[in-house]
Amino acid sequence: MKHHENESKYLGLNVNKGVETPPTINPYLKSKKKRKKYTVEEYVDEILKGNITVLSQAVTLVESSREDHQELAQAIIEKCLPHAGNSIRVGITGVPGAGKSTSIDSFGVHLCKQGKKLAVLAIDPSSERSKGSILGDKTRMERLSVMESAFIRPSPTAGSLGGVARKTRESIILCEAAGFDYIFVETVGVGQSETAVHSMVDFFLLIQLAGTGDELQGIKRGIMEMADGIVINKADGDNIGKANIAQNHFKNALHLFPPAESGWTPEVLTYSGYYDLRIAEIWDMVDSYIAFVKENGYFDVKRNKQSTYWMYETINERLRNDFYRNEKIEQLMPTLEREVLGNKKSSFIAAKEALDAYYDEM
Amino acid sequence: MKHHENESKYLGLNVNKGVETPPTINPYLKSKKKRKKYTVEEYVDEILKGNITVLSQAVTLVESSREDHQELAQAIIEKCLPHAGNSIRVGITGVPGAGKSTSIDSFGVHLCKQGKKLAVLAIDPSSERSKGSILGDKTRMERLSVMESAFIRPSPTAGSLGGVARKTRESIILCEAAGFDYIFVETVGVGQSETAVHSMVDFFLLIQLAGTGDELQGIKRGIMEMADGIVINKADGDNIGKANIAQNHFKNALHLFPPAESGWTPEVLTYSGYYDLRIAEIWDMVDSYIAFVKENGYFDVKRNKQSTYWMYETINERLRNDFYRNEKIEQLMPTLEREVLGNKKSSFIAAKEALDAYYDEM
Repeated sequence: MKHHENESKYLGLNVNKGVETPPTINPYLKSKKKRKKYTVEEYVDEILKGNITVLSQAVTLVESSREDHQELAQAIIEKCLPHAGNSIRVGITGVPGAGKSTSIDSFGVHLCKQGKKLAVLAIDPSSERSKGSILGDKTRMERLSVMESAFIRPSPTAGSLGGVARKTRESIILCEAAGFDYIFVETVGVGQSETAVHSMVDFFLLIQLAGTGDELQGIKRGIMEMADGIVINKADGDNIGKANIAQNHFKNALHLFPPAESGWTPEVLTYSGYYDLRIAEIWDMVDSYIAFVKENGYFDVKRNKQSTYWMYETINERLRNDFYRNEKIEQLMPTLEREVLGNKKSSFIAAKEALDAYYDEM
Repeated sequence: MKHHENESKYLGLNVNKGVETPPTINPYLKSKKKRKKYTVEEYVDEILKGNITVLSQAVTLVESSREDHQELAQAIIEKCLPHAGNSIRVGITGVPGAGKSTSIDSFGVHLCKQGKKLAVLAIDPSSERSKGSILGDKTRMERLSVMESAFIRPSPTAGSLGGVARKTRESIILCEAAGFDYIFVETVGVGQSETAVHSMVDFFLLIQLAGTGDELQGIKRGIMEMADGIVINKADGDNIGKANIAQNHFKNALHLFPPAESGWTPEVLTYSGYYDLRIAEIWDMVDSYIAFVKENGYFDVKRNKQSTYWMYETINERLRNDFYRNEKIEQLMPTLEREVLGNKKSSFIAAKEALDAYYDEM
């Protein structure tokens, strides 16, 4: 395990420029050379056998921006697709400090002890700047990182949220083909990352801390509506009373929400990631949810929606990117924005002018 | 008032094909001929003078899909823009049966009696099919429709939500140039129309009915978060008790929400549109909100955001429309969607194929 993790972490940092030969002596050079010889079929065969080293190398291809790597990656994904789809995908979010890493460590150990295989992925488009604020530090999941049946992969570091999300979603396919039972997708409680993760998982878990009684104030609008379950961490020792109060607050809040499309009423549980308290209850909840939505058909409805969502989202994102990154448009937009804000042009006239300029050039 | 209303209603039905000469004898033929002679400057002069007949004709140009009408409309809007922006824009929504028309009638009469001028617009993209489910039937606002200082305009009937929203937003500019103090934008509580209205108003008012105690269940997720005020209609006679219970439910629910960006905590009031009870309180609330956000600067922040939002939204919508309405793409997408749902292609490979096909052709 140690081997491929270090490697993928190293490669992750170079991902923008493609996978390069490192400037200094590299203990993993041998395995990299060996990887280059793999054919698509060999990659797929090894992944289907559950070979985690090869899986990790395939994920590195997915994350690479080099064109030959991308071609190879897409060919592997296409062949893995028929074998994908059989995991339970769980999105995990919470503000910094909520104890996500400790919790994932604890959740993961619980599942592995039950004989399950677990892959932990992440979406953190800011990780390039922050040098990987989530999952980058292996020591934060020290028990899970040494388990045979766990695969931990830091967030792809390159590019826009759309790009990072694509890489993570493609990595899910590879992990599923490799036979993982659960796939966690961790994200930070900022920006649009949570929406992206929500759009690729079956169950969305919100980790909260009990605070001063007004913890609801700290939640972004919309995030509670995405949650299938809310779990309040650090419910141990002197903190239990506060956690129970927070639990009631959240329960009341959720009770007042209209029902979710899934028909499922989100549950609120308390636990302690650090002391491994009431972890089983959380995974009983996740399993109950999965059974519930498989029974009522929503499981497949949601997965199908997500597949087409990502197709259309990718198209729409590239249409926008191609437009806004066009040189002429980049020059034009600040002027148009000023004119709109200065009441010189209506929003619609400005839009028309920008589009006319764009299509003229094509 | 009667004159221009009937006319605009008539013209509204023909808006898809442009403004046509009616097949039979038309009492308004004379004024239509006269309108054709107006120059841009004359239109603008009359609108700025508050000439409602000319305003109505200009709105008809905005709604027309004929190219010469559009050119004329855009020229008028551009000249009206510097005189726009001075009204209080109020979005009004609620499910069918909540009593929107009666309420707007009652609200409008209240404001007109205070010496205010009021324009009532609407967004209902379904109105072409339903022959105008909102504002179409004048008799539903019988008191307001005969008031000198009120201008009631049915929803534009042609096209997509984006198209309808554009027309309404442009009509707001014209109405503001004509000196209206309040502009209502009514919408039905379905689909994306509420989001569109929310993106063009200063205050978003949600009309609710007291029911069996579980009225919160009936609200779409997200709509309560958009509301700056919730008003419970039909709080009269035997219904007062139920209305008060509903009021408490909504207050509790709102209390549990995180604070809105405006810093304003939405209020919940009860009233009776039919019996004109506690109408003043509602408009005191709206005025308090406006004073509050003008004081803290959010009023301008929101308006600027809305202006740029509509520019970018219009660009993005047309980029999408041009793509999805492309003949080659129309043929290709069903196949790609099948392949994605059948796990034959990843969402991203399918997206790439579609985009390559599109750009190849251009």
